[in-house]
Amino acid sequence: MKVRTLAVIGATGAVGRIVLEQLEQRNLPIDKYVFMASKRTAGTTLEFMGQTYTVELLCPDAFAGIDVAIASTPDDVAKELVPWAKQHGTIVIDESGAHRMLSDVPLVIPEVNPHAIGTHKGVIASPNCSTTQLVVALKPLHDFARVRRVIVTTYQATSGAGTAGQLELTASLKASLAGEAFSPTIFQHTIANNLIPQIGSHKENGYTSEEMKMVYETRKILEDDSIQVCPTCVRVPVANVHSESIVVETERPISPEEARSLFQAFNGITVMDDLPSSVYPMPCNTDRRDDVLVGRIRKDLSSPNGLAFWCTSDNLRKGAATNAVQIAELLLCDKTALCGT
Amino acid sequence: MKVRTLAVIGATGAVGRIVLEQLEQRNLPIDKYVFMASKRTAGTTLEFMGQTYTVELLCPDAFAGIDVAIASTPDDVAKELVPWAKQHGTIVIDESGAHRMLSDVPLVIPEVNPHAIGTHKGVIASPNCSTTQLVVALKPLHDFARVRRVIVTTYQATSGAGTAGQLELTASLKASLAGEAFSPTIFQHTIANNLIPQIGSHKENGYTSEEMKMVYETRKILEDDSIQVCPTCVRVPVANVHSESIVVETERPISPEEARSLFQAFNGITVMDDLPSSVYPMPCNTDRRDDVLVGRIRKDLSSPNGLAFWCTSDNLRKGAATNAVQIAELLLCDKTALCGT
Repeated sequence: MKVRTLAVIGATGAVGRIVLEQLEQRNLPIDKYVFMASKRTAGTTLEFMGQTYTVELLCPDAFAGIDVAIASTPDDVAKELVPWAKQHGTIVIDESGAHRMLSDVPLVIPEVNPHAIGTHKGVIASPNCSTTQLVVALKPLHDFARVRRVIVTTYQATSGAGTAGQLELTASLKASLAGEAFSPTIFQHTIANNLIPQIGSHKENGYTSEEMKMVYETRKILEDDSIQVCPTCVRVPVANVHSESIVVETERPISPEEARSLFQAFNGITVMDDLPSSVYPMPCNTDRRDDVLVGRIRKDLSSPNGLAFWCTSDNLRKGAATNAVQIAELLLCDKTALCGT
Repeated sequence: MKVRTLAVIGATGAVGRIVLEQLEQRNLPIDKYVFMASKRTAGTTLEFMGQTYTVELLCPDAFAGIDVAIASTPDDVAKELVPWAKQHGTIVIDESGAHRMLSDVPLVIPEVNPHAIGTHKGVIASPNCSTTQLVVALKPLHDFARVRRVIVTTYQATSGAGTAGQLELTASLKASLAGEAFSPTIFQHTIANNLIPQIGSHKENGYTSEEMKMVYETRKILEDDSIQVCPTCVRVPVANVHSESIVVETERPISPEEARSLFQAFNGITVMDDLPSSVYPMPCNTDRRDDVLVGRIRKDLSSPNGLAFWCTSDNLRKGAATNAVQIAELLLCDKTALCGT
């Protein structure tokens, strides 16, 4: 019997470390693990399932014998590694934004569009963190009453910019409390005691790259280009967990009670909704969870077919590592999917 | 000639101190100032225009000889003091929420509805902080193309809960950085490294009191009950300055260029809008300003008549103290307004 080998690329990064945790917790049919990183951390060691591994250097030949690779890298690194992987027949689960919108790359959230995985040609993309939690929350509403319009405003954590983003928040907070000046290097402006209404670069029509990802990726995953999305993405001084204020219009109205039932019945969503008792999702009660949390479910007062709610998710987990490992699980436990190559 | 006397009530609070600063900067036709506070701080002294004043105790007789009082107090104190003021013919400019929605109380933003002041019967209300900046931004759009629908999501600073709110943020941040537990007393949950999607109490239909203020006060100030508002109010770990993500639908479309011109021409609004250069309003560049800042002006991608933008304002200044002092200015410099009593 063939030995199945899985590689984790970017294994020493903020998301990579959680990929390892997830792999330790889930029972994937894998016989051998390989860990890769760029020059900066290759050669260091890491612990995985009680064993010590040396992190290998990411290079073309490193893909020999690898069946599946989960890659948590910047876009430019992902673009470089995919041709190397293809040469060795390695299927890449790519968490970067490099391949998501390519027509021959399925963009997959296992709870939402598992069927899409079957069409892959060697690369399967995991969506942007802010899109994943939005689409998980939209899916049961879309199935029930067809989503027509989404207005979403985000509160995004600094961990979205990796370990460096988290470290900059801490350094910035310390400087702020000490009344000292701080020069940011990761974010465009000081993040402590501030909000930055820009994530990514200016893209088109006054929207940022992060915002346009939410527009295009939502349509691709829900397989409906007629869904209209108006996003506003904002960085907030929170270490981890993205939050979103969402107003959705559907073809026919959904009552808050119906929405609550739909959310509750959906795999991957937890409803936390009791305003009189001050119970709702927040970063502090979402951190280190793998599900998407929904609360403040209520009628949109401004539209007959509108519904308003609040949604949180650990952006390093469901927004990145957890979703990628779930894709690997789907791929390795579903033979038709593996035949896609 | 009669000596004109102005009282500042709640003079030692977070907003009261800024009322004093504003009065020092503006040349109001006032001959005598009186400062009042509750038992807790009455008897202390404060400096105003180079003189030392003793803070007097707020009580029924304290209104004798007072023409106008600017009151920065909680709702219950405001309800108690208005009858005392009326007995002495004192006009009260009330910053609390106690009287705003009463039909015989004008709710005034001087740049937006100065004419309303003429109808007062002894009490003029200043709007809630989150409403004021929203309505200032909506006014030029409403005049140009009639606002039909507003979806607003807030990022509200801890200073909205007074000095105690600001102190709790600092204490909570210190505990968070030290890895220590923190028990909040002002906010419902820990505010450091967190977001709280609840401001005020549960009011109706799953909305909070703060959110419903934005619905009702907006309609009253713009004198148009057909405006539909869907608000989501969220407390963020920022010391001062409220921010809002606003999507507005108008009767006929407004292009981003038209909106920019309308905002620029409006007294009290400053446009700060250059995304490619990472220039937009933020708490850090809005703190201690008296205007309302607008940026990220763009077409709402989800509606033909929609416009999206981002808006910040110092909630202690234009959201409270500055607006109240501007009302006093309007009242004292406009004889028809004074005849309203």
